[in-house]
Amino acid sequence: MKLYDYAQAPNPRRVRIFIAEKGLDIPVEEVDLGTRAQLNPEFLAINPSAAVPALETDDGDILSESTAICHYLEGLHPEPNLLGTTPLERAQIMMWDRRIELEAMGAVAEAFRNSNPGFVNRSLTGTTNYDQLPDLVDRGQARATESFEWINTRLGESEYIAGDRFTIADITAFVLCGFARWIKQGPTDAHENTHRWLAAVSARPSAEA
Amino acid sequence: MKLYDYAQAPNPRRVRIFIAEKGLDIPVEEVDLGTRAQLNPEFLAINPSAAVPALETDDGDILSESTAICHYLEGLHPEPNLLGTTPLERAQIMMWDRRIELEAMGAVAEAFRNSNPGFVNRSLTGTTNYDQLPDLVDRGQARATESFEWINTRLGESEYIAGDRFTIADITAFVLCGFARWIKQGPTDAHENTHRWLAAVSARPSAEA
Repeated sequence: MKLYDYAQAPNPRRVRIFIAEKGLDIPVEEVDLGTRAQLNPEFLAINPSAAVPALETDDGDILSESTAICHYLEGLHPEPNLLGTTPLERAQIMMWDRRIELEAMGAVAEAFRNSNPGFVNRSLTGTTNYDQLPDLVDRGQARATESFEWINTRLGESEYIAGDRFTIADITAFVLCGFARWIKQGPTDAHENTHRWLAAVSARPSAEA
Repeated sequence: MKLYDYAQAPNPRRVRIFIAEKGLDIPVEEVDLGTRAQLNPEFLAINPSAAVPALETDDGDILSESTAICHYLEGLHPEPNLLGTTPLERAQIMMWDRRIELEAMGAVAEAFRNSNPGFVNRSLTGTTNYDQLPDLVDRGQARATESFEWINTRLGESEYIAGDRFTIADITAFVLCGFARWIKQGPTDAHENTHRWLAAVSARPSAEA
């Protein structure tokens, strides 16, 4: 097995932390997004979506999409469980993971990729170049601020994001907190629930992955 | 059980088709997005994300996010299988379903919500009003055109979206084709693979759901 990775990018980090929580040892191959290596024909033959992470299985199949890769790994290595056990718990974890990913990480990505000089005409992943749109910087910042509000509210109701134990939704939210620093956002001093949760999640060995 | 629904919206339709494929009979309650009923306090108490679909379980739990609802229903009613059986197949189906949803449906939603007069200051779902951004109409149209290209390429490699049988990824792609008509897009005459697939999927009784 092999993980196509890029150390600084948030989505590969979600998968690296998931792998660390599972106690697995999967070799990584760095795809240097800094030099746009994801657009080289050799990598496009691996993942036509031009994105990391991608996982090459032992049989040579390629999986992309962080969440799909994590589901594959949990299928092979069910313990410790990070995706839920009952139908209800599985759905609740998926619901929260998607909210964190699509709303909160999506907001940060929108602000970041539309403002950072390294992403001129690369405002979206994929093979096509799309110009940065300044309006999306403001919108992304506003949505990120909102996201940290509802995340703090949620963590006032629940010890972890999806319930009373650590799951994939906490991995996504933890990676979000690091990613948000690139746009100078994150939980504010008033977000006490989030800081309580962040202290617990940061103390896990997987946080270094 | 009860599904909070809106007949014209694409995401509830994904769940209705999934329910029809399972042969289930789940009562629906219409939430009239046309009058912005999703923003009423009564509905926000059900789904703070102000979005349909949402599923109320027999125990009174609320699930939102179409994909999570479908995973819940498959957990309770495993046959016919629409989400995969082996870890690899499950991950491949999830990967394709996400590509169709996040890239292709996301593109159509971007063009549609930023141009339609019914969505002035409602360019994103959720409780906050965000102005329409004209730049996103062009970007969404371009991304939708691209999406129908790679979908046709994929359907030249594979009988169905995720492999050799009908899965949730076909439901999402079928709903996409209907949704795209709102922005005057869809498979072109040249997309013969897509038309072959669309004829098969449209002939299923669930297509009426």
